[in-house]
Amino acid sequence: MKTTEMMETYPAEINLDRELLARAVETLVTCSQACTACADACLSEEMVAELRKCVRSNLDCADICDATARVLSRHTGYDANITRAQLQACVQACRSCGDECEQHAGMHEHCRVCAEACRSCEQACNELLAAIG
Amino acid sequence: MKTTEMMETYPAEINLDRELLARAVETLVTCSQACTACADACLSEEMVAELRKCVRSNLDCADICDATARVLSRHTGYDANITRAQLQACVQACRSCGDECEQHAGMHEHCRVCAEACRSCEQACNELLAAIG
Amino acid sequence: MKTTEMMETYPAEINLDRELLARAVETLVTCSQACTACADACLSEEMVAELRKCVRSNLDCADICDATARVLSRHTGYDANITRAQLQACVQACRSCGDECEQHAGMHEHCRVCAEACRSCEQACNELLAAIG
Amino acid sequence: MKTTEMMETYPAEINLDRELLARAVETLVTCSQACTACADACLSEEMVAELRKCVRSNLDCADICDATARVLSRHTGYDANITRAQLQACVQACRSCGDECEQHAGMHEHCRVCAEACRSCEQACNELLAAIG
Repeated sequence: MKTTEMMETYPAEINLDRELLARAVETLVTCSQACTACADACLSEEMVAELRKCVRSNLDCADICDATARVLSRHTGYDANITRAQLQACVQACRSCGDECEQHAGMHEHCRVCAEACRSCEQACNELLAAIG
Repeated sequence: MKTTEMMETYPAEINLDRELLARAVETLVTCSQACTACADACLSEEMVAELRKCVRSNLDCADICDATARVLSRHTGYDANITRAQLQACVQACRSCGDECEQHAGMHEHCRVCAEACRSCEQACNELLAAIG
Repeated sequence: MKTTEMMETYPAEINLDRELLARAVETLVTCSQACTACADACLSEEMVAELRKCVRSNLDCADICDATARVLSRHTGYDANITRAQLQACVQACRSCGDECEQHAGMHEHCRVCAEACRSCEQACNELLAAIG
Repeated sequence: MKTTEMMETYPAEINLDRELLARAVETLVTCSQACTACADACLSEEMVAELRKCVRSNLDCADICDATARVLSRHTGYDANITRAQLQACVQACRSCGDECEQHAGMHEHCRVCAEACRSCEQACNELLAAIG
């Protein structure tokens, strides 16, 4: 991804560490893509009826990660309150989706890989929250 | 919009009042559309340089409202923690965007209309948060 | 929705009829919301295994309608080629999703209502395409 | 990104080459993020008034790339007509945005990097279109 390269070209000041921000954005878009793919993989499983909650968590997590990645990609007119609240929602979505996927990780590789993506994303959001204060 | 009609067709139980939910979803998609349009209208104003923060608030608010509307449109495997956190982020985004647009409401009709949409949306999210508890 | 009101506040020229555009945007966001809700309702049905293709069509249609509604909500630096191509993709998504939902309309109310939304949206996009030429 | 890893875990058949698909999805999310960041960077430039069209192209391209990446991340109930039409819209959006950004590439690093992302994305979409036939 070109996230770091783009982050370095922002022509004004950024209140947060650019490398930390770039890493968070990358983790978010990776998690969003994994969740979209995992929802679809669950849908194709024979036992789809037992994966309903997993599909739903995946869809929510994908939408919330996407919105969060976009907010973090903008620096003009920075508003810490929005960034903080959206990161908190994202931590929640990643935790729930990671928990749900983990329960199916032994049986479904897509859930195992997706759970990893959710855990990384939860951590990246928490690190950024700590930096924002 | 067909939001109420769709909400009534959901074949299982919903933990929240369907009418309240449908109203919130409609207010969210209305606000998102208004914010997307307001960002673009600001961009075309001669004084665009003074509307930078407004464009940014509009873009964030549109993305966050969209994600929130999608979360609220799903009921399968309901997770109050995600809904609550995302609603709180949305309240924050609508408040910030409403405040910003309000400052230009006297000069720009699009900001005046958009500020109204943000205020309605902030209120609808707060009502839903109260119902979730 | 405030779509018409927002459309009227755009401070520069718009190459297309504002009322036609506003109607298309409203139909698109209505369709997107109906598709998101229908995917979730399908997911909660006992016979979810037979609704896999319907869920998938719904998710695609929701994402494509959202992108199309955003493109049509912007007028600054208008590019007919993008608008046309995205409208054509949307016509395709609405047709496929409408066809799929229609097959389940007799059994599932959410599919019946969603199919209606898809048909209206396909038509609104086609009308706009005719106006663009 | 975990795109390739996720693509390999899809439990049923995929009509297209998984590696080609994974590469396209990664290029799309990279382009979307670059466009979101470039729109914001343009907004913070002193000469923002001359970058209006660039901001608009960036916003459209981000939304269209996001929708396309999501469609390509799903394989259940594959519909070549939707994939093809959405890829064609994406080629158009990437070409327009790449052309616009290129005009400012000599003056703004973010436009130079973003133009590269758009060119790669246009090419990846065209390769996938050729494979779909």
